[in-house]
Amino acid sequence: MPTPTTTPATPRPTRSRAGGYAKGRARRLQIIDAATELYAEQGYRGTSLRDVAARAGLSHPGLLHHFPTMEALLLAVLEHRDAEDVERFALAEAHGVEALQRLVELAEWNQARPGIVELFVVLSAEATAPDHPAHPYFTHRYELAVATTTQAFVAARGAGRLRDDVDPDVAGHRVVALMDGLQVQWLYRRDAVDMAAELRDAIDGLLLEPLPRA
Amino acid sequence: MPTPTTTPATPRPTRSRAGGYAKGRARRLQIIDAATELYAEQGYRGTSLRDVAARAGLSHPGLLHHFPTMEALLLAVLEHRDAEDVERFALAEAHGVEALQRLVELAEWNQARPGIVELFVVLSAEATAPDHPAHPYFTHRYELAVATTTQAFVAARGAGRLRDDVDPDVAGHRVVALMDGLQVQWLYRRDAVDMAAELRDAIDGLLLEPLPRA
Repeated sequence: MPTPTTTPATPRPTRSRAGGYAKGRARRLQIIDAATELYAEQGYRGTSLRDVAARAGLSHPGLLHHFPTMEALLLAVLEHRDAEDVERFALAEAHGVEALQRLVELAEWNQARPGIVELFVVLSAEATAPDHPAHPYFTHRYELAVATTTQAFVAARGAGRLRDDVDPDVAGHRVVALMDGLQVQWLYRRDAVDMAAELRDAIDGLLLEPLPRA
Repeated sequence: MPTPTTTPATPRPTRSRAGGYAKGRARRLQIIDAATELYAEQGYRGTSLRDVAARAGLSHPGLLHHFPTMEALLLAVLEHRDAEDVERFALAEAHGVEALQRLVELAEWNQARPGIVELFVVLSAEATAPDHPAHPYFTHRYELAVATTTQAFVAARGAGRLRDDVDPDVAGHRVVALMDGLQVQWLYRRDAVDMAAELRDAIDGLLLEPLPRA
């Protein structure tokens, strides 16, 4: 999925002593993991920095040393997730039908990590409020998700893979909306909803030949 | 949309003096409207009963007289919205293609009330957490939404209106997911997304003849 444009205003890892970089980096990851869990469970607005410090096993001042504000921590969590997804699926480099295939693989991978799906479902809902600190992040994320998915359908048309009656713009919006809606249904009924299979089936319905099976 | 199974554990309207019923009822509605706004803005978990009392122009004890707990108020808000939708669109009485048409009308109506869309987007995301007081409500709501939409496609097939290659079960899940995903996109880009038109177009693609135009 898209990388964020927002750069978190967080301090560099501490280097107070030898090995400090690595240690500071590990401590930051530990805090990011704790915050990820708590945001997924109770939202950003329901989570204080004290909650995160307690979950991470740190003192409140210890946490403030790494993340001086709630906003800085939130943006670090989002940036960390995006970086992992981009690395894992090389989403930025895929085009056309291959990019659509990557979306299905991402949905498959998400089915193994409900906490991360919860994180994005809860934060993207909260952040519809214009004064939410992640509002610019998610506004941009949606624009980019729709644009890259639309571009994948445009490229599929260029390669003679798209059904004649499919409008790439409509398909781009719709596939992104479908992924989001399936995530919510899946969180309520994990046994009854197969996000990846539903997404693959929906995309197959837009193509002249179905996506390749793994 | 479906009516809730959960009955809010709220006291009956006060009847402390003549005209007390009507007055108590008006006061309850005033509190429900204030809570609706605040939940939409900052989520249930970010909203205290004191916040609601302040927004409604009541004292904290004055609010507690009507809604003794946060959970009671939350369930009253949800029940109030569902009752309004059911009344407005007589959703329970529509069948087949007519029921699908009502879904599009509901999406049209929702485009005029972003606060209510925010309310459901934020609460349905928050309530994916199993310990959230609205978790049973939304679990049931999704089951019923998927079941009634699937039933509409089954009836459309019976009436010879559904395309042969459409599976009513898949269509039921997918249309509900699409509505949810479009709501989120719309909240971020109200100028760029027409929820009702996209939904109508998606449903038309599943039918042998498009839905009737108003």
